[in-house]
Amino acid sequence: MNTLIKTIEIIGIFAFALSGIIEARKKGMDLVGVYAVGMVTAFGGGSLRDVILNRHPLFWVEHFWYPIILLALSFIAGFIVRQVMEHAKAMGLVLVLDALGLGLFSASGASLAYQAGIHPFIAALLGVTTGVFGGVLRDIICNEIPYVFQRTELYATCAFAGAWSYLFVTWTMANEFVAVMACITVTFVLRLFAIRYKIRLPI
Amino acid sequence: MNTLIKTIEIIGIFAFALSGIIEARKKGMDLVGVYAVGMVTAFGGGSLRDVILNRHPLFWVEHFWYPIILLALSFIAGFIVRQVMEHAKAMGLVLVLDALGLGLFSASGASLAYQAGIHPFIAALLGVTTGVFGGVLRDIICNEIPYVFQRTELYATCAFAGAWSYLFVTWTMANEFVAVMACITVTFVLRLFAIRYKIRLPI
Amino acid sequence: MNTLIKTIEIIGIFAFALSGIIEARKKGMDLVGVYAVGMVTAFGGGSLRDVILNRHPLFWVEHFWYPIILLALSFIAGFIVRQVMEHAKAMGLVLVLDALGLGLFSASGASLAYQAGIHPFIAALLGVTTGVFGGVLRDIICNEIPYVFQRTELYATCAFAGAWSYLFVTWTMANEFVAVMACITVTFVLRLFAIRYKIRLPI
Repeated sequence: MNTLIKTIEIIGIFAFALSGIIEARKKGMDLVGVYAVGMVTAFGGGSLRDVILNRHPLFWVEHFWYPIILLALSFIAGFIVRQVMEHAKAMGLVLVLDALGLGLFSASGASLAYQAGIHPFIAALLGVTTGVFGGVLRDIICNEIPYVFQRTELYATCAFAGAWSYLFVTWTMANEFVAVMACITVTFVLRLFAIRYKIRLPI
Repeated sequence: MNTLIKTIEIIGIFAFALSGIIEARKKGMDLVGVYAVGMVTAFGGGSLRDVILNRHPLFWVEHFWYPIILLALSFIAGFIVRQVMEHAKAMGLVLVLDALGLGLFSASGASLAYQAGIHPFIAALLGVTTGVFGGVLRDIICNEIPYVFQRTELYATCAFAGAWSYLFVTWTMANEFVAVMACITVTFVLRLFAIRYKIRLPI
Repeated sequence: MNTLIKTIEIIGIFAFALSGIIEARKKGMDLVGVYAVGMVTAFGGGSLRDVILNRHPLFWVEHFWYPIILLALSFIAGFIVRQVMEHAKAMGLVLVLDALGLGLFSASGASLAYQAGIHPFIAALLGVTTGVFGGVLRDIICNEIPYVFQRTELYATCAFAGAWSYLFVTWTMANEFVAVMACITVTFVLRLFAIRYKIRLPI
């Protein structure tokens, strides 16, 4: 079961890094920029979570192979970005993987905050923050107003619903694995629905 | 007496959140963006102060009702912003409340830094940082050069004078309440003067 | 020998602060903005290093005379910037001093990370981060895409090579002073070569 969660984590980091790498290439950055924006997008949310919860070392400092793999990925960024740009299906795949990552990181933020005895509302907020902050940093570095704050298809809202699902399952069933999967499922399904039917917040 | 300081803190958070909410609406953000920018503006300075001074949990994690109230506020953001935009008096009121908040947060930064045994100059700097950093983050997210760094009416300078007032009273009278009120008063009066007479730094 | 490293540290902080002050003046900021951007450029990298490694107090909080000197520097910013703008040699000098600072801060990041038992690859990354993050923050505040991420003369790459030199010397000779000097030398020489011959990354 933990293998499943681990697999989703790696998929999520991969998808987040990819979205950073794509943005960086679009802005004409070189290998250093591509790697930095990829790193920040993939690890920004988890790092903020760890700093807020005073967890050390930060998770990417501990899992040192993640940054190494991302460097390898950055070397073939030109090739990756061409594939994603030219094939609508590849772009769709990135969105699907990103939705998985959003769900998983939100679960990790909500879970670690809740276990630290933090108020459920703040735990849900920290879940969302963990899920979306990497993308916020990516957009700030690329000199754009963060995508997630704009009037576009639901993103943070899906993570918020997912984080509450995590908390709800934790309270009713006290099963961490089911709770994490509930968060991922709710976030993922909501997000795909929002993309498919262009659902936006009314206000 | 602590009730007075508590009241000013809530007023300050309210005013800071409002300035974030207004900026976010101007940029066409939806509820998520409005809430996020409101949160960051209201809690950014205090969070940086807590991270620099290694204080955990961060103050908005502990005072969980602040983020909850801000969410409620974000739901009626459209209504609030219309009021502020259409009534010159409402805009003036926001500036006055903001000046109160600036004074109080600067006092809190200077006070906690000084009590942690940090050099007075750095304590004064941390006071200013606590007061202005939320607005800096707001402007960075909204893709603007931070207002506080531009050649405009004195803002950070008022907080700097206020922070030194705090330190001066602490040294001479050793009374925390008087020191905090001195910081708020000096910051507040200077700031209103700067707005009224368009006082800017000569360099 | 430590005097040499201390001297280079002060030179590096001075050069970094200068690059921040110049950018801030170009954007028409006043004394507050100039000081803030100077501070952030000079201390941003070291602060991120200290937060990631959970070192408290942050180094500029401890070395309180650095921020005081920077304030003095900010008062004469107009004069400094005129000199640098009008004399090509002065601009060249800033680039040379900046290359020294880049090398030294990278050494400090790699060294502290390595001593904290962190994986060498992450230690090298933290070295680069310590060297370049101040400049990244400077550019974000000034509403530019960070210089270091753009397709321009090698910068972070020099620091990366320098950080590995530090690690290599530490492993083979176990001499901290030689390792730090190796990092500074490699970074410095590579950077000057890159500027002189307009060397860029091929990808």
